[in-house]
Amino acid sequence: MSILVVGSVALDSVSTPCGRADEVAGGSAVYFSIAASILSDVRLVGVVGADFPTEYINLLRQRSIDLRGLEVAEGETFRWQGYYGEDLNVAQTIETKLNVFGEFRPEIPAEFSKSEYVFLANIDPALQSRVMEQVERPVFSAMDTMNFWLDQRRDEVARVMRLVDGVIINEEELRQFAGVRTLSSAASSVLELGPKVVVVKKGEYGCALYGEDFYFATPAFPTEEVADPTGAGDSFAGGFIGYLSAVGAIDNESMTRAAVFGGLLASFTVESFSIEELARVSIGDLQERFDEFVRYTSFDSSALEITVGKPLSSVEAPGTAAI
Amino acid sequence: MSILVVGSVALDSVSTPCGRADEVAGGSAVYFSIAASILSDVRLVGVVGADFPTEYINLLRQRSIDLRGLEVAEGETFRWQGYYGEDLNVAQTIETKLNVFGEFRPEIPAEFSKSEYVFLANIDPALQSRVMEQVERPVFSAMDTMNFWLDQRRDEVARVMRLVDGVIINEEELRQFAGVRTLSSAASSVLELGPKVVVVKKGEYGCALYGEDFYFATPAFPTEEVADPTGAGDSFAGGFIGYLSAVGAIDNESMTRAAVFGGLLASFTVESFSIEELARVSIGDLQERFDEFVRYTSFDSSALEITVGKPLSSVEAPGTAAI
Repeated sequence: MSILVVGSVALDSVSTPCGRADEVAGGSAVYFSIAASILSDVRLVGVVGADFPTEYINLLRQRSIDLRGLEVAEGETFRWQGYYGEDLNVAQTIETKLNVFGEFRPEIPAEFSKSEYVFLANIDPALQSRVMEQVERPVFSAMDTMNFWLDQRRDEVARVMRLVDGVIINEEELRQFAGVRTLSSAASSVLELGPKVVVVKKGEYGCALYGEDFYFATPAFPTEEVADPTGAGDSFAGGFIGYLSAVGAIDNESMTRAAVFGGLLASFTVESFSIEELARVSIGDLQERFDEFVRYTSFDSSALEITVGKPLSSVEAPGTAAI
Repeated sequence: MSILVVGSVALDSVSTPCGRADEVAGGSAVYFSIAASILSDVRLVGVVGADFPTEYINLLRQRSIDLRGLEVAEGETFRWQGYYGEDLNVAQTIETKLNVFGEFRPEIPAEFSKSEYVFLANIDPALQSRVMEQVERPVFSAMDTMNFWLDQRRDEVARVMRLVDGVIINEEELRQFAGVRTLSSAASSVLELGPKVVVVKKGEYGCALYGEDFYFATPAFPTEEVADPTGAGDSFAGGFIGYLSAVGAIDNESMTRAAVFGGLLASFTVESFSIEELARVSIGDLQERFDEFVRYTSFDSSALEITVGKPLSSVEAPGTAAI
């Protein structure tokens, strides 16, 4: 199965309490592609300037990411400069230079128009709609968006929601879209537009899935030290759709596992600046972290057998307990 | 097994975006006791004024909570008045009248001094220490605290931490205590003082447990509409210790289930003002919600069997998927 992603390709300059990195690979399509490529085949549509470093192109190629849809335009690559303070959940933008990305009008190569999975990363909702017009109906399509588009072009965002199967969105942006604080109500207002699943990203707190008669929540993998949160959400989406594509199923059970793998891919991303750590992840690393995550979140689900005042087993003496 | 809890008994006046309630039952020891009494035997030590309504006393008695340690002092009961804005995670205090609680010096009745489980709810750390001096070493003891004591009396809080087996604390307060943002580092600095487990409460995001070579995280039960978050943390602690007491074990596996049951008890509390909903909860209700929670959080933990580009199974046609 192949995944088509349309989004930004950027050079980021980021500072965080852990340090800084200048002019490093970034952009939603880059994080998504690398994460998804660990699990499936990826086709990237985006634009860079002639200044985009060849080393990054080679890195994407090594991941077998199909770059026939990556346009190299005259001018400079999209640049984002920002920082994170102590609250790593909030990126502060210092400067955005759209450069060649400002004129980006995605053209889906004919050989990509039949892609089983489609992800519309966070770009202008008009362009997201344009992509959906250029592809045959995929098995599963999903979109992301951000507060800027919700502020400026809410109706167009809602129009794209009507075209996709899944909406992958930050909790605050979901609340902003719906105008209500309760996530289940906010998710319902998206489901009413047509999507079959709303995937709510909660950063360090994990994620939740909302569908018709379906709910799932899972915590995030506990990262010892977050170096740079940039790209976590796009890596999550890459892992999520990458997993669905790899197993070739979009039932509820697959969605729950997809959400777990999405979270794990995001956890690799935040361990370093840019794509440094993510680009090194093998399927074996992912499996290992998955096993660890299973240990961290499992609890005995057998029925509660308690008669108040009459405990089942006798208490252990202090000091002999396992903890 | 019996649980001794020492904490506040109050009359609260609370307003939230959902409505308001005046002079209703509140206080850490009340929420804790009711939650724990669903699972085990509870002994309450606290103080009220002569004005504390008999209906609340009766309600606690109906739950078989042993009130021989509840002093009725001359004067008025502790009163707290506060409100929650859109952010239900943060209580805003309008007025606190300590009244008889201001002079509270816990005296543990002789018949309570041998209690297998002890919970020091959020009170003056000097009083928490005093309680520990009056009891025989329990099977498991735990404490809570709050920002006020961490601001004013951090050293005394640390001293209490050295005396207990578990610290049950909000994530922001844990960060404040440790002076670091990363929860695992913050938890380590508590574990170094002696406790075997740090239970981090994250409100709507669930909780995490940190021990030596032990970690567990679980989301919160998804409450449709939060009426009033007051008492959620104390209900969590009541469910946590209530479960440990009921099963008579304090190994890691019991801790994980205790954390899940703690979260479920908290979810009942926030569905109404005061103890209205919590006081109605039966062991059957708890079992039912537990089963629901298991469905909401389970995922297939079998190994990842993916060869990139060669999916295991063929894709389902659009429209036939279960979601």
